[in-house]
Amino acid sequence: MGSPNHKPMTGEIRVLPLAVSGEIRAGDSLCARLLTAARKLRMRFQRGDILVVKHKIVSKAEGAIVALSDVEPSTASKKWARRYGLDARVSELALRESRRIVRQKNGVLITETRHGFVCANSGVDVSNVDGGHHAVLLPENPDRSAAKLRRELKKRLKIDVAVIVSDSFGRPWREGLTEVAIGVAGIEPLVDYRGRRDAHGYSLHATVDAIADELACAAGLVCGKLANTPACIVRGYSYRRSSGGAQKLIRPAKNDLFR
Amino acid sequence: MGSPNHKPMTGEIRVLPLAVSGEIRAGDSLCARLLTAARKLRMRFQRGDILVVKHKIVSKAEGAIVALSDVEPSTASKKWARRYGLDARVSELALRESRRIVRQKNGVLITETRHGFVCANSGVDVSNVDGGHHAVLLPENPDRSAAKLRRELKKRLKIDVAVIVSDSFGRPWREGLTEVAIGVAGIEPLVDYRGRRDAHGYSLHATVDAIADELACAAGLVCGKLANTPACIVRGYSYRRSSGGAQKLIRPAKNDLFR
Repeated sequence: MGSPNHKPMTGEIRVLPLAVSGEIRAGDSLCARLLTAARKLRMRFQRGDILVVKHKIVSKAEGAIVALSDVEPSTASKKWARRYGLDARVSELALRESRRIVRQKNGVLITETRHGFVCANSGVDVSNVDGGHHAVLLPENPDRSAAKLRRELKKRLKIDVAVIVSDSFGRPWREGLTEVAIGVAGIEPLVDYRGRRDAHGYSLHATVDAIADELACAAGLVCGKLANTPACIVRGYSYRRSSGGAQKLIRPAKNDLFR
Repeated sequence: MGSPNHKPMTGEIRVLPLAVSGEIRAGDSLCARLLTAARKLRMRFQRGDILVVKHKIVSKAEGAIVALSDVEPSTASKKWARRYGLDARVSELALRESRRIVRQKNGVLITETRHGFVCANSGVDVSNVDGGHHAVLLPENPDRSAAKLRRELKKRLKIDVAVIVSDSFGRPWREGLTEVAIGVAGIEPLVDYRGRRDAHGYSLHATVDAIADELACAAGLVCGKLANTPACIVRGYSYRRSSGGAQKLIRPAKNDLFR
């Protein structure tokens, strides 16, 4: 991660919801839709803003949606789904989107997705789509999606805006979902304090903060599941610019004690 | 969790840093120190504010600090520490503060703390203390600490302020630390969307959000490790009042696939 030039925060941070009216459909320009939404709300993007978007609108715009009626579940998916009262077609998609099963027990399927994220059902989701007839997959390459959105915003606005694509993941040991960054552009997702000294001159050992995930969580507070607010702007957070990359947030399997 | 009356967010959220000057010492009134800090910054607490404090100042005020020179490590701690270049006294404290070892491998010690939290080294920490001579433990009962602070604020200010005590935890599969709530008072830490319907009438299945952790993360963006800002106010987040309890955030071992 190199030597960070991230400055300690002194000012306040604002999280500004960006409500988007109407459904996002395959082929829609997400950039255009978000700029229209901002205009309606009389919001103006500023240099250093961080735009956080729920992955679902990215997937929808990119057409990463599957009609469940087109999915033919395998015998294994059928058996698993029947046993736990699940939709076998969704289980089938989850397995197809995975490159490895991490746990499959008690009706819970934790996989490593094609991208390397470890989450339930490979991130396949049927809520907030169209009444349960379609499933939304994770974007094919969320870092690329974030970078594209950032590039388009820069072209239209002539200013630098960082972009985070987020999803809600569960986690071991703790109840409830929290947002995580699955795509990152224009901001360094980790802030490395190692080797720096605290106020007492004590070297900070193991302090690397996953600020992209913390930003996704802050955004999650306004991007309510039921509120038609699939995006928000985080303003006032001083960050280190970089190409980004949510891949940096994935712990290599060899360093992971829980796979 | 019962039926929530949490309303979808429409407004913005603000995260207001609360810098505290001078060291917090055992016996200090955290409430008085925070109110002094707020006064200096001309900040006024408002009804519905959420105060987030890093656990370290809570532990310090409560005297949950140990002089490392007083710690006699066991043979096992010495062996483990020598093997990985660690401080055996810190390893010893981590083991003493634990009720179960979850993983101990490659120099990483993941325990279940006396409270039930699963984290590295039982949350024992030597950074930001006094140059490495003392270790800070987690508060004895962080929910009680949060409730006490909330009660004192209410007494002084005559308004309801929710309180979250936070710490930085690592997690499996992902790099970097994020803040989590280890003590919660006055706010329901989980928002349960199960049984509600999304904008398409589709019932939301597994959607319980750990909003106390998301609030802790939002706070973590301003409570910088090096910035002398051990607390902040989150304003504008509409939440359901309850007695709280970070214990609700702990997944019971029997439902957990990763212990």
